[in-house]
Amino acid sequence: MSELALSSDRSVTARGVRAAAQRLAGHIVRTPLLENDRLNDIAGGRVLLKAEVLQRGGSFKLRGAYNLISQLPAEARARGVVAWSSGNHATGVAIAARAFDCPAVIVMPSDAPAVKTENVRALGAEIIWYDRYSDDREAIGCAISEDRGMTLVPSYDHADIIEGQGTVALEAMEQAGAAIDRFVICCGGGGLTAGCATILEDIAPGTEVWIAEPEDFDETWASIKAGKRLTADPTKKTICDAIATPAPGRLTFPILKRRVSGGATVSESEVRRAMAFGFRRLKLVLEPGGAAALAAVLAGKIPTRGTTTIVTLSGGNVDPALFTSILRDGENFG
Amino acid sequence: MSELALSSDRSVTARGVRAAAQRLAGHIVRTPLLENDRLNDIAGGRVLLKAEVLQRGGSFKLRGAYNLISQLPAEARARGVVAWSSGNHATGVAIAARAFDCPAVIVMPSDAPAVKTENVRALGAEIIWYDRYSDDREAIGCAISEDRGMTLVPSYDHADIIEGQGTVALEAMEQAGAAIDRFVICCGGGGLTAGCATILEDIAPGTEVWIAEPEDFDETWASIKAGKRLTADPTKKTICDAIATPAPGRLTFPILKRRVSGGATVSESEVRRAMAFGFRRLKLVLEPGGAAALAAVLAGKIPTRGTTTIVTLSGGNVDPALFTSILRDGENFG
Repeated sequence: MSELALSSDRSVTARGVRAAAQRLAGHIVRTPLLENDRLNDIAGGRVLLKAEVLQRGGSFKLRGAYNLISQLPAEARARGVVAWSSGNHATGVAIAARAFDCPAVIVMPSDAPAVKTENVRALGAEIIWYDRYSDDREAIGCAISEDRGMTLVPSYDHADIIEGQGTVALEAMEQAGAAIDRFVICCGGGGLTAGCATILEDIAPGTEVWIAEPEDFDETWASIKAGKRLTADPTKKTICDAIATPAPGRLTFPILKRRVSGGATVSESEVRRAMAFGFRRLKLVLEPGGAAALAAVLAGKIPTRGTTTIVTLSGGNVDPALFTSILRDGENFG
Repeated sequence: MSELALSSDRSVTARGVRAAAQRLAGHIVRTPLLENDRLNDIAGGRVLLKAEVLQRGGSFKLRGAYNLISQLPAEARARGVVAWSSGNHATGVAIAARAFDCPAVIVMPSDAPAVKTENVRALGAEIIWYDRYSDDREAIGCAISEDRGMTLVPSYDHADIIEGQGTVALEAMEQAGAAIDRFVICCGGGGLTAGCATILEDIAPGTEVWIAEPEDFDETWASIKAGKRLTADPTKKTICDAIATPAPGRLTFPILKRRVSGGATVSESEVRRAMAFGFRRLKLVLEPGGAAALAAVLAGKIPTRGTTTIVTLSGGNVDPALFTSILRDGENFG
C-alpha cells in the first residue's frame, strides 16, 4: 500500500485535471451542458446544467476511477482493484476496471439498493457483502487489498480521483463559452467539488464555487465556516444516499476551505421537488444526491438572479419505487 | 389562406433544411447525440440516440414551428397563428409564437393530458377546447383562421414544417462524425421522417431511413409497401398519442415512398419496455410516441448488428401516472 499512500498524498493540481481529461477522452461521455427556459425564469438568471446523469454508469464517478486505474502499472492492474461503496463509485470502478481487463472487488452493504448492485454485478465485478451495522467495510477492503495485492480505489480522498472528477468543470467551462459567475456542486466527501475547484482556480479564478448538501449531512459547509473538519451524525437518515458522507476528506478539505464561497442546505422536500422538476421539465432522471444542487437553485438558496450559474446534475441511479413516490406527489411539479 | 397554400405546396428541399438550420441556430437546443454501452450490447452494433426530449418544449416540434413562424411577414405575425394539436406541436407553436410576440390560438381536445395543456397555457397561448367525439377540430381551426386572419400552422403537411424537422438529421449527422448505416424515426404524419429523409438524401445518400410505428397505426409503412396512402382505423387506441396519425400526409408521403427502406411495428409492451430502459439505463424521460424507434431496436426489429444506427428519441411529455405504471412493472427493466 506504500504506492497508494504516496500517490494519494501528492498535491491536486490543475495540470493533473488537464492530464486526466486527456486520459479520459474517448472513454467517457462528454456530457451535455443543458439550459431550460422554465429554470431560467425561476432563477432569474441563466442556469446551465452539467448533465452527468448521462455519463456511463449514470454518474460522474467513472471519471475519477478511470483516471486512477488507467495510471496503474500493468502488474498492479493484473492483480486488480478493490473499493467500498454502496453505489455510484462502485459502478464507476467496475466500468473502468473492465476497460482494462482488471479484476475488481467491491465491498457493498447487504442492504444496498438493487438498482446499484445489479449494475456492479452486470459489469463483472466481484461483490463482497458486509453488514452495515456490525462490519467495518474499510477493514474488509484493506484486508482484501493486503491478501490479494489489490490496489485500493478510494471514493474521494486520492489525488487521481479528485483530478478525474475535476474534468467535469473543465468540460463545462469549455462548453459554456460564456463568463460563469458560479459553479454549484452536490457535495458528499468533496471529491467532485475539490477537483472542480482546483481547475476553476486556474481557468476561471473569478468563478465562485458553491456546494449543496442535504439536511443533517451539511457538515462540509459547517466545517469550512469553522475552519476545521466537523463530523455529521452518521446515524441520521437522508434520501441523498450518494452524498451522505459524515465528514469532508483529508485531502479534499484544505481545497474546499480555500475555494468554496457558499453552501446551501436542502431539505428532503426540496430535493423531491427538484427530482419532480427533472422529470417534468428537464426530461432527466435524477437521483436525490444528484439533484441537491438543482434543489438549492429552485429553493432560492443560491444567488442566481442576473447572473450565470453552472449546476451539476451528478447522478441518476434512483430506485423506481422512490421515483414513483415523487411522481405521485403532483403538487411538486413546478 | 392563399399564401399558406402556396408555401405549403412548394417542394421540400435539402437547401430548405439548411436554411431552416440557420434560422433555428441559437433559438433551439442543439440536442446531444448519446450512446449507451448496454444498448450497444443489445443491438450488437453502435446505436446513437438523438435526444430531442431535451429540446425546448420536450420534443422536436419547435423546429418546424419556429421555421414557419420566423418566415411570416410582420403583419401576419401580428395577426397571429392557429394550430390544432393535443400536445407537442401545440407546445412548439406556443414557444415559437412567444419568441416573435405573435398571438397563438391552439385548438385542443377537452380530454388532452394535463401535462400538455399546462405547457401550452403557461406559454401564454389561447386554448380553444373541442370535443373529440362530436367536433371537427380542422373546421374550428380554419374558422378561427378566417375570422381573425390568423395563419394556420399545420403539424406536418407544410414545407416549412418538414424542413424545420429535417434539421434533426442535419445536426445528428454533423455530431456523429462517422458513417451511419441507418436512421430510425418515430413516425406519425411523417413530418420528421420526410424532413430527415430529404436532408439525408443530399448529405448521406447511402444512409437508410427506417420508421417505427405503433400497432394499429402502422399505416405509413403499409402505405409505402402498397404505393398509395392507406388509412388506419382512428377509433383504435394506442398509448403512443404523439404518433397516432390515421394516414401519411399529402406532402410527406411522396418523400417517404421514395426514401424509406424499412418499417417496424411496435407493440404497447415493447414501447413500455423502451420507456423503462430510458429510465433505468439512459436516465431520460421518454413518452410512448417518442420511444417507438428505441422500442423497435430493443425488440430486434431493426437490423442493427455490426452497423451504426441513429435513433430519434422524439419526445418526453408523458403523464406521471403512466410513467409510474411503467416503473412499477419491474420486469421491464433491461
